[in-house]
Amino acid sequence: MEICKEISKLLIEVRNKKPLVHHITNYVTVNDCANITLAIGASPVMADDIYEVEEMTSVSSSLVINIGTLNKTSIESMIKAGKKANEVNVPVVLDPVGIGATNLRTETVERLFKEVKFSVIKGNMSEIKILSGLEGKIKGVDSEETLNGGENIAKDLADRLGSVIAITGERDIVSDGKRVCIIENGHKMLSRVTGTGCMTASLVGSFAGVTKDYYLAAISGICAMGIAGEKSFNSLKESEGTGTFRIRLIDSIYNLKENDFTEGGRLSEI
Amino acid sequence: MEICKEISKLLIEVRNKKPLVHHITNYVTVNDCANITLAIGASPVMADDIYEVEEMTSVSSSLVINIGTLNKTSIESMIKAGKKANEVNVPVVLDPVGIGATNLRTETVERLFKEVKFSVIKGNMSEIKILSGLEGKIKGVDSEETLNGGENIAKDLADRLGSVIAITGERDIVSDGKRVCIIENGHKMLSRVTGTGCMTASLVGSFAGVTKDYYLAAISGICAMGIAGEKSFNSLKESEGTGTFRIRLIDSIYNLKENDFTEGGRLSEI
Amino acid sequence: MEICKEISKLLIEVRNKKPLVHHITNYVTVNDCANITLAIGASPVMADDIYEVEEMTSVSSSLVINIGTLNKTSIESMIKAGKKANEVNVPVVLDPVGIGATNLRTETVERLFKEVKFSVIKGNMSEIKILSGLEGKIKGVDSEETLNGGENIAKDLADRLGSVIAITGERDIVSDGKRVCIIENGHKMLSRVTGTGCMTASLVGSFAGVTKDYYLAAISGICAMGIAGEKSFNSLKESEGTGTFRIRLIDSIYNLKENDFTEGGRLSEI
Repeated sequence: MEICKEISKLLIEVRNKKPLVHHITNYVTVNDCANITLAIGASPVMADDIYEVEEMTSVSSSLVINIGTLNKTSIESMIKAGKKANEVNVPVVLDPVGIGATNLRTETVERLFKEVKFSVIKGNMSEIKILSGLEGKIKGVDSEETLNGGENIAKDLADRLGSVIAITGERDIVSDGKRVCIIENGHKMLSRVTGTGCMTASLVGSFAGVTKDYYLAAISGICAMGIAGEKSFNSLKESEGTGTFRIRLIDSIYNLKENDFTEGGRLSEI
Repeated sequence: MEICKEISKLLIEVRNKKPLVHHITNYVTVNDCANITLAIGASPVMADDIYEVEEMTSVSSSLVINIGTLNKTSIESMIKAGKKANEVNVPVVLDPVGIGATNLRTETVERLFKEVKFSVIKGNMSEIKILSGLEGKIKGVDSEETLNGGENIAKDLADRLGSVIAITGERDIVSDGKRVCIIENGHKMLSRVTGTGCMTASLVGSFAGVTKDYYLAAISGICAMGIAGEKSFNSLKESEGTGTFRIRLIDSIYNLKENDFTEGGRLSEI
Repeated sequence: MEICKEISKLLIEVRNKKPLVHHITNYVTVNDCANITLAIGASPVMADDIYEVEEMTSVSSSLVINIGTLNKTSIESMIKAGKKANEVNVPVVLDPVGIGATNLRTETVERLFKEVKFSVIKGNMSEIKILSGLEGKIKGVDSEETLNGGENIAKDLADRLGSVIAITGERDIVSDGKRVCIIENGHKMLSRVTGTGCMTASLVGSFAGVTKDYYLAAISGICAMGIAGEKSFNSLKESEGTGTFRIRLIDSIYNLKENDFTEGGRLSEI
């Protein structure tokens, strides 16, 4: 499939160019994000003090903002770094973790939307639905979802925001407002390990650091994590569980080969 | 044994109800806490900004407060979350890490005691002794300890505070002020991995999210970690050490079965 | 070789004395630092609130300061802890992560240098070069480096600062201003895992907690990590990668034996 070949090429680009991926992220999964970024072949940097985020973003190939453990201080750093990234044409990936769970998270994303332009926004269905609501009501969201599994939500929101929207779940959906891609790789055990969503955002950031096609970058990061999830699960012995699975995820990303995508990618564009 | 059957039932409850366990914890072992919570079948959320902790606690089934890397900001969040938890009847588990090591830690726990009612307080012997001191002198603590290994300390303190007290160590002791349970599961390698105490508090929080019997919840969490420690150690090959042991701990919790408690639980109530 | 025997003895000292190693470090790799400190046989404590760092340092055997995710608050704690350490003769190890990448990092290290005396400063070549610049220009740094791989940079800087300087890389260089030691242990996969540098500083801190010979302590920590890297890489199966490698690093440090240094240490003093 054509798109799988493009992902393969992008993987080679990441390994050759080793893009620097600046993260302003949560302290729960930050180590996993750094290690997955290294495993795919990119280079992570974590820095969130307001006095250094602009400098760090300026020398980076992409910026990943994750609100998993946001606080008053880090929010200001996210905005400052995001604005700088826009100014110097560094793509910004947003992972709006837990938006809707608290007012602080919802209001923070509202503020981020006013001040920063995102290249990719990645969340699960409930997070993306909240985002849709922020941006004006979509009629019949739920029924549409039943009908088409979220494709329209992703497409509409991408169109309105001018960002690539990625909805992760059993089926992942990526849209840039025109194209829509469904990714069926993955394994349900990914939801039993903390940080697999955050790591996916790091992979998207790694790919976004070597291409201007952020739609392809989002698909690549999500598909890579899905394939790694399948491989990791298949490698488990009976006595092993989520601890070993998490380590194998890093191993699997490290060992990804071009034909893993062309032979194992289960993508369909609609 | 009767109590082992009750733990088995509680494990099934955790897996069915997937209680949300809100953590305000340290940044050293937070990832381990999240992963062990997922492994037992519960759902972790880590959030510590003062503007969102009340909302997060309100929708949670339990709250775990760990002072491992406390600071001026997080202390206020702990108090705010703890008070809210009391208000909405969410059980609160306290892990007073390193109390006694610095005045800040001791004073913080004193403040927490004034403002928050805890369902379970879990610490090692030296931490619990400091707590006993805070709450009025126990005569002859040391001699009593030599005599009975801490049972009286736990029972007295539980009675005075109206909290379940859990003392972890080679023998773990849990008391609600009336009943006392000794748990002899575990392995000394648990003390060679950071965060096994913190993870135990997360397990206690997971069980406390599905029962009002916090004495049973504390025993369940501690016994689960003890059995996981034994299994993990027994699975190690000669070239393996604490790195692999830590991963197997998560695997073992993930793979816990009901009969692990009924066949492997070494509990005695006195 | 004589120095390898000394390292072996020091390893035994660490395991017997279990020195308390106080870390003020970054939130990315802090868990790895704690686990490697436990694995070598020492005891880690992480505490960075300004109201408790002095007390914690006072009861510790060494202090490790790492600026990986520094911020306005933690910088003040680093200075306070460092000054206290100097006062009570606790050795201080500095890992100036990313110095030169932002002004904040460079200025922070300048401030630290004014206020705190370091026993060991460990960084990669580009970090140590920046340090050299801070402390007055070295002529022809680059050509000298080509010529002698950094030995002169380390020796000169050690001499000027009165600190042991350790430059990590393919060949590691340690100097106290008089002696210079080259360590050729290690594996390039160490650079594909986050935190191997931070963990090396923790090992140096562990050794520095049991000897006044900080030159030997630095060599010991770096050599230990190098040997662990070799063992871990050699143990990998084809499907394994950096995830497993990282776990094996902890295992390998845990399982280090005296003859690992005498038989596997590749050290030369010049």
